[in-house]
Amino acid sequence: MKHSYENIVEIEHVLRKMSGIIKRKGREILNDFPITPPQFVALQWLNEEGDMTIGELSTKMFLAFSTTTDLIDRMEKNHLVERIRDQKDRRVVQIHLLEKGKKLINEVLDTRRKYLADILEDMSTEDVDQISLSLHQLFAKMEDDII
Amino acid sequence: MKHSYENIVEIEHVLRKMSGIIKRKGREILNDFPITPPQFVALQWLNEEGDMTIGELSTKMFLAFSTTTDLIDRMEKNHLVERIRDQKDRRVVQIHLLEKGKKLINEVLDTRRKYLADILEDMSTEDVDQISLSLHQLFAKMEDDII
Repeated sequence: MKHSYENIVEIEHVLRKMSGIIKRKGREILNDFPITPPQFVALQWLNEEGDMTIGELSTKMFLAFSTTTDLIDRMEKNHLVERIRDQKDRRVVQIHLLEKGKKLINEVLDTRRKYLADILEDMSTEDVDQISLSLHQLFAKMEDDII
Repeated sequence: MKHSYENIVEIEHVLRKMSGIIKRKGREILNDFPITPPQFVALQWLNEEGDMTIGELSTKMFLAFSTTTDLIDRMEKNHLVERIRDQKDRRVVQIHLLEKGKKLINEVLDTRRKYLADILEDMSTEDVDQISLSLHQLFAKMEDDII
């Protein structure tokens, strides 16, 4: 299906502007927490996908191995994560999210959810359901494209 | 209207993940062009809103005045923009997008649109129209929140 050029121009524009607002708002929210944006992204991945090696985390974050190592060093110093030996293969070191890190990431996520709940407050349930559905459809296509 | 917590959690999650993909894809696209991500953002504003002062551009980009000045210096050296005197008030210096900058920003935007057209290719016109509508509704609320 070839979609109208006007529609594509419009969607690219609104996605670009929306991403800008989400980035800005996300940074604003992080100002009230003792973590940096890359630390937030790292905590997010560990919270969602559990223990992983620095190599795996580097790949997910699109960062160099050395940059991720520095990031994890700082987070370990702040007791947000710890390095542990893999139970199956003692030569492998995994990054494990600590209680303090888990609490922090959930506080940040809750603040983001509160912002979004405010944004959607005066919309009807039908509109919000439709927005959720549309976003999921679009996101699924974007994910397909990556894999 | 109080929306279900599950819905809010879902929408926050999908928006966060989608912004991540858009950021990554945007950087990937810029690899093929001779500009950096902040230069892309500056060109975008000048393309959409016309001539403006460095102060105005700093505000829009959420950057320090000195950072924006450095950015514009580099872009002026590369003939993407030029500094011009305001016609109404000769004391005021405006940043003006040059032909080369205009061509470049439009090439980048076209590449982003092609990516999006591919993503949406096998969706029905109805679904794409609905996605466009939902994104606009959500974006309008986010913009209201900023102002």
